[in-house]
Amino acid sequence: MALWVQKYGGTSMGSPERIGHVADKIATTRAAGHQIAVVVSAMSGETNRLLALAHEVSHRPDLRELDQMIATGEQVSIALLAMALKERGVPARSYIGSQVAVRTDQARGRARILSIDTERLAADCHAGTVPVVAGFQGVDEDGNITTLGRGGSDTSAVALATALKADECQIYTDVDGVYTTDPRVEPRARRLATVTFEEMLEMASLGSKVLQIRSVEFAGKYHIPLRVLSSFKDGPGTLITLEEHKMMEDAVISGIAFDRNEAQLTVTGVPDKPGIAAAILGPIGAANIEVDMIVQNVSSDGSTDFTFTVAQTDCERSMEIVEPVAKRLGAKGTHAVTDIVKVSVVGVGMRSHPGIAAKVFEVLAREGINIRMISTSEIKISVVIEDKYLELAVRSLHKALGLETPANPR
Amino acid sequence: MALWVQKYGGTSMGSPERIGHVADKIATTRAAGHQIAVVVSAMSGETNRLLALAHEVSHRPDLRELDQMIATGEQVSIALLAMALKERGVPARSYIGSQVAVRTDQARGRARILSIDTERLAADCHAGTVPVVAGFQGVDEDGNITTLGRGGSDTSAVALATALKADECQIYTDVDGVYTTDPRVEPRARRLATVTFEEMLEMASLGSKVLQIRSVEFAGKYHIPLRVLSSFKDGPGTLITLEEHKMMEDAVISGIAFDRNEAQLTVTGVPDKPGIAAAILGPIGAANIEVDMIVQNVSSDGSTDFTFTVAQTDCERSMEIVEPVAKRLGAKGTHAVTDIVKVSVVGVGMRSHPGIAAKVFEVLAREGINIRMISTSEIKISVVIEDKYLELAVRSLHKALGLETPANPR
Repeated sequence: MALWVQKYGGTSMGSPERIGHVADKIATTRAAGHQIAVVVSAMSGETNRLLALAHEVSHRPDLRELDQMIATGEQVSIALLAMALKERGVPARSYIGSQVAVRTDQARGRARILSIDTERLAADCHAGTVPVVAGFQGVDEDGNITTLGRGGSDTSAVALATALKADECQIYTDVDGVYTTDPRVEPRARRLATVTFEEMLEMASLGSKVLQIRSVEFAGKYHIPLRVLSSFKDGPGTLITLEEHKMMEDAVISGIAFDRNEAQLTVTGVPDKPGIAAAILGPIGAANIEVDMIVQNVSSDGSTDFTFTVAQTDCERSMEIVEPVAKRLGAKGTHAVTDIVKVSVVGVGMRSHPGIAAKVFEVLAREGINIRMISTSEIKISVVIEDKYLELAVRSLHKALGLETPANPR
Repeated sequence: MALWVQKYGGTSMGSPERIGHVADKIATTRAAGHQIAVVVSAMSGETNRLLALAHEVSHRPDLRELDQMIATGEQVSIALLAMALKERGVPARSYIGSQVAVRTDQARGRARILSIDTERLAADCHAGTVPVVAGFQGVDEDGNITTLGRGGSDTSAVALATALKADECQIYTDVDGVYTTDPRVEPRARRLATVTFEEMLEMASLGSKVLQIRSVEFAGKYHIPLRVLSSFKDGPGTLITLEEHKMMEDAVISGIAFDRNEAQLTVTGVPDKPGIAAAILGPIGAANIEVDMIVQNVSSDGSTDFTFTVAQTDCERSMEIVEPVAKRLGAKGTHAVTDIVKVSVVGVGMRSHPGIAAKVFEVLAREGINIRMISTSEIKISVVIEDKYLELAVRSLHKALGLETPANPR
């Protein structure tokens, strides 16, 4: 008998009928002898409906009040699921964040979980009652409701699995696992049986939006096996696990991720002297804008070009910040481009196979795709290219790196 | 400078635009130097939307979960109003029941308020911040969310006014006061400047659904002046007050209330012996069915007829309970009628004017309206008549009792 924490997302909870389907799934698993604790998101569309209301009454809604309001989405869905479970004869009880002391810091709209009081939850599991916990929310030390930000329910589930020392944290979603790349771009993309936390982190942060990145970090840190499954289709999904457990399928490369939402900003002709990166990126960081890739080349004539990428939504604001700084530094100019895409090849096998980068560049060259920026890590190679080449790049790399067939099929 | 608790109902909060209008009203009152604490209901339609969802996932939704879910309606509207106030530069802060410890008993769906922790609220008022409190909800000793039942936000407002020792509790609604009778039945109905708590209780319990009856009881018990006003139309509304304060307008009769939702059950030919009423009504009470009027006549031949009224929705269940009892008692038979209406004439002036009952019967007789049942109290005369005579009875009584023009217009 295992203890599983199951998380059902907004699409899985999208209608009373689907909630009934989730209740059926839980009832079946419980009947097989497992203990289940459940974390759910708001019904799909609900959070957006509430946000729209907020923006109708205020141009810049107060963040405390926004959290107070948006947390109701999960409160409704936990109650509905608990009712549906009871309707099927399964003892169940719903909890909002404050009722099981999901304590967070005070960062409105993007709070971090500090602790969970598992006393009631463990007692419920032990007694055969299914606790249904609101994802995405918590409560700060003053009793204010906080939310974890979009996708925060995944993090709630992992935090709960950690606190309850669960055997597995199962994230039910509308896809049936993690794929070698986005099947909408490459139809031959293949579901991975396992992937490591590290690989998943690189995939998630690069735009494969299956799981919230913080939940993967969290699970990796506490060694909680994380499984991504479909709410609508039976199957084993993808198990996200530690590197040493990923033996069966020892491909060098696990997948190809891409991100269409980046913008590339360049400051040209900056005098090549110490402190330039800090001078340019300091004010960007201070404005809470996240910088992704950063490239600075060696200079030839005492000046250099400094390039970095940010989310497209931050592009305009970033330019407003960078332009006066560039002037002050005596740079030649600044420019931004948004018709770019970042493509990343990810795999822990790279550690022992040094030839991958060369192969990636060779494939792109063969297809006549110009590389605008390169950045690498131990288990990842990212390139920025013109966005019109996205499909061509992904498909060529998917084929050339042998992702169509598993190295050691399970 | 006064401290007012203002309550805005679901219609007043029915859309972002209307919420903005409420925020304008509060901002104006506050600018005039008054301290305001606000209680709000869910946006109109929201509670019904949630109930419908619940009934889609369960035939008999669990009551704890129902409370957990339905309380979100008010949570959304307090946050929206606080945002709208801040948008207008008015400091505001929303609170759900648990955040200001609105402690209730554990009666799911119809809980009673035991206490409110006013520390934060009083500090807010003192600092010029408008606290916006969720009506209709509280929290029990185990941290479960409870609700007070339909219209419970009025009670929340009065409880808050009592706890804060407010100067007045103002209930904003979609009508501009309490009328001598329903203007849809008698267009000459007139708004009352004042009415006593006692009269209001009789009017409310008899179907004038302006205020929740428990809120009037509560306000009367703690001597909190209660004012009913319109959210949409400026005006003084109706002040509900103690009898000694109602001097200016000393009409004998304050109004005519009616209730279309009663059913009349009769047990005919019951042997006239002690314990009959208890034998018949005991099981009805045990089934949590509320009995309104009860009439038993003297017997002529050793047997009597026993008649009582219940809500129409309880009629079928009541008959199922009464039939076997009647058989056991050796009664002749049982029957129920639902095409009836109860009309009540209410006024504290009756205490000093004993001729009112005779006048009521005379008016009805003149119009050829047969009285099926009579029941009186110190300040009220109720009759049950066939429902087709409702308009005729109300209009004739309204005229004959001089309700069209105030006795002492203010």
